[in-house]
Amino acid sequence: MNQDALYTELTLKPTGKLALVVLDGVGDVATREQGYLTPLEAAATPNMDALAKDAAQGRMIPVAPGITPGSGPGHLGLFGYDPLEFKVGRGVIEALGLGLELRAGDVAARANFCTLDAKGIVTDRRAGRIDTKVCEELCALLSQKVKKVGDAEVIIKPGKGHRFVVVFRGKGLEGPLTDADPHREGFPVPASTAVNAKDPKARKAAKLVADFYKVALPVIAQKKPANGFLMRGIAHQPHIPLFKDRYGLRPACIAVYPMYKGLAQLVGMAKLEGPQTIAEQFERYLAEYDNYDYFFIHFKYPDMYGEDGNFEAKKKAIEEFDAALPILLRKKPDVLAITGDHSTPCVMKGHSWHPQPVMLHSAISGSDKLDRFTETGANQGSLGIFAAKHLIRLMQANAKMFDKFGA
Amino acid sequence: MNQDALYTELTLKPTGKLALVVLDGVGDVATREQGYLTPLEAAATPNMDALAKDAAQGRMIPVAPGITPGSGPGHLGLFGYDPLEFKVGRGVIEALGLGLELRAGDVAARANFCTLDAKGIVTDRRAGRIDTKVCEELCALLSQKVKKVGDAEVIIKPGKGHRFVVVFRGKGLEGPLTDADPHREGFPVPASTAVNAKDPKARKAAKLVADFYKVALPVIAQKKPANGFLMRGIAHQPHIPLFKDRYGLRPACIAVYPMYKGLAQLVGMAKLEGPQTIAEQFERYLAEYDNYDYFFIHFKYPDMYGEDGNFEAKKKAIEEFDAALPILLRKKPDVLAITGDHSTPCVMKGHSWHPQPVMLHSAISGSDKLDRFTETGANQGSLGIFAAKHLIRLMQANAKMFDKFGA
Repeated sequence: MNQDALYTELTLKPTGKLALVVLDGVGDVATREQGYLTPLEAAATPNMDALAKDAAQGRMIPVAPGITPGSGPGHLGLFGYDPLEFKVGRGVIEALGLGLELRAGDVAARANFCTLDAKGIVTDRRAGRIDTKVCEELCALLSQKVKKVGDAEVIIKPGKGHRFVVVFRGKGLEGPLTDADPHREGFPVPASTAVNAKDPKARKAAKLVADFYKVALPVIAQKKPANGFLMRGIAHQPHIPLFKDRYGLRPACIAVYPMYKGLAQLVGMAKLEGPQTIAEQFERYLAEYDNYDYFFIHFKYPDMYGEDGNFEAKKKAIEEFDAALPILLRKKPDVLAITGDHSTPCVMKGHSWHPQPVMLHSAISGSDKLDRFTETGANQGSLGIFAAKHLIRLMQANAKMFDKFGA
Repeated sequence: MNQDALYTELTLKPTGKLALVVLDGVGDVATREQGYLTPLEAAATPNMDALAKDAAQGRMIPVAPGITPGSGPGHLGLFGYDPLEFKVGRGVIEALGLGLELRAGDVAARANFCTLDAKGIVTDRRAGRIDTKVCEELCALLSQKVKKVGDAEVIIKPGKGHRFVVVFRGKGLEGPLTDADPHREGFPVPASTAVNAKDPKARKAAKLVADFYKVALPVIAQKKPANGFLMRGIAHQPHIPLFKDRYGLRPACIAVYPMYKGLAQLVGMAKLEGPQTIAEQFERYLAEYDNYDYFFIHFKYPDMYGEDGNFEAKKKAIEEFDAALPILLRKKPDVLAITGDHSTPCVMKGHSWHPQPVMLHSAISGSDKLDRFTETGANQGSLGIFAAKHLIRLMQANAKMFDKFGA
């Protein structure tokens, strides 16, 4: 019997509130340079410390040993979806990141403006890294001239610098497609083709991309230096079982950045818009307490400062988070998980595979007798090191949402 | 998506050096009799202690919980090959252990001389445990008289005591075959047959074994007490993906004992011959530093003394290893893993299933703030308890050899 089926069979109605609070990229590594402390260990976190006394801790492997996840797989795992089973293409993630509301079946591509010579050879893959403003103008022009290709609607949205996103919204489309990108200069733009050549939906999508090139390239042909564009990560928004059907919970997302709202939307969470600070996010949770069973609250800054390699700022962001935590605790969730979607060690200035620490607090979580929530403490916790996709199941169990298996 | 495929897809070119240093059978259990210390804990290991401060630790399950591996599965796991997926027959392991260079498709059998009565009944399965010298003489005689069977070359190599190995090198051969061994006295030698009766290659191999008996038995029929022989573990050298293709690393083996060289050769490692001591092995590593990306360095003695149940000698072997370690560190590998292929507890006088401790050191391994490398310390490490086959993936991750998964 498959595990998911077992969980589904045993799932009971929720009687309490569950909250997943994500400190993006909170996990880090202790190094000699920082006195063998991680930012979480160096930070003053009296409110998390108080929770730790009555919580279980552990560490989570986001995808697989040694694999560094992007935000997409990182969050899908936290939401209980195996990132290897539910793959979301880079075009889709990019579109979500720009705040586009994708629908199942939409085909999305990451794109960037480039420079082509008279023979169509790519001479600069980033068109001299044009300004965001120029990119916005070019996208506006393309949007105006190319609204449809075949029977599919075309949605174009600018990103930063030379980057933009193209979405094809039509019927019977599917990815993934090969990149319309030679990935180096000195070559022409290759045609995008269906990765699975036998898939008629992907072949139809590939034809749309080719047709899009035919009508869009002439629109910018006289522009300098951005007289062409490349497309990659072309994939469709996959069908993902809805969170509420899978777990029997009414879910809501309280995030600030579009990417995380997009990922939550992908699994059918309600997006509670408006809050800009973590204090406001917690206030919103209080206001919506009765309306949902599961709250996903996302705090971006530990990751952002980890990416900068800024230890002090990452530490301060964690302290800022901790200072706001009492707002959430005014109506303490029956099950509260505090964790990251992955580690972002300052020393690496980027995401990593190091298992992120997790603290799980409920009336029945048990106490691991740890005084703080830290990476090193989590190593000794009762949850051990486990796949992130199991966190939701532990949260449901702590909410007494599973019937006994067998007599 | 399958995990191996994911790793392959994300693999980047190596930019540093990786070293796997195996203290064979280093893992042990703490007992009252030894003051609740393992040999690793009782040993003075200042050099490993110094590394521990800046390393991650954990324990590894060689094959599956409770399963005690032989050296074959133990090492295949360390090399990243699931020992349940890549099964190597005992005949092949034995042949490798005797220093035979097998080729893919060779069929190898463990054999031993036995005593038969006039009716062909086995009266002594070990022919009175004849001396190695007698075994060598019998093998030389057989080698001289039986060079081919059918279209296959026959290679015979003596081992210790009554043991020897027979290899059939021909075309279209395959194992496994059933044993030509009644496994007890008082019965005739059964014919060896294909385990999968529908496999024509295995049927051909079984015919070769039968033909070999026909020509080989008369050669020794008048000898006493060894006038017959038994064959078991008859299998072919399997096709195993080459280490360099699987991991994108140029691998080299620096081992003293033939078995470990053979296992390294099985996955396509270069064998750097010559060194006899661990100090010489580390010197050889220094000399070959630029020529390879991955070094497998094997130290046999903790296992050997563990098998003897000699706690003091095992402890001293570990100390001898530690004393030589600074030679390796003259050109410190970018990623260094120190571990065993399994545990060999003195109290058991043999291999065991107890997860072996592992220490992983790199600029980004992070520190688990442990002062020493020990079994008990490893229990508290950030690597947790994991399948040994994942070690290579963690080593690659620490060498920054994986691209990010998803956006």
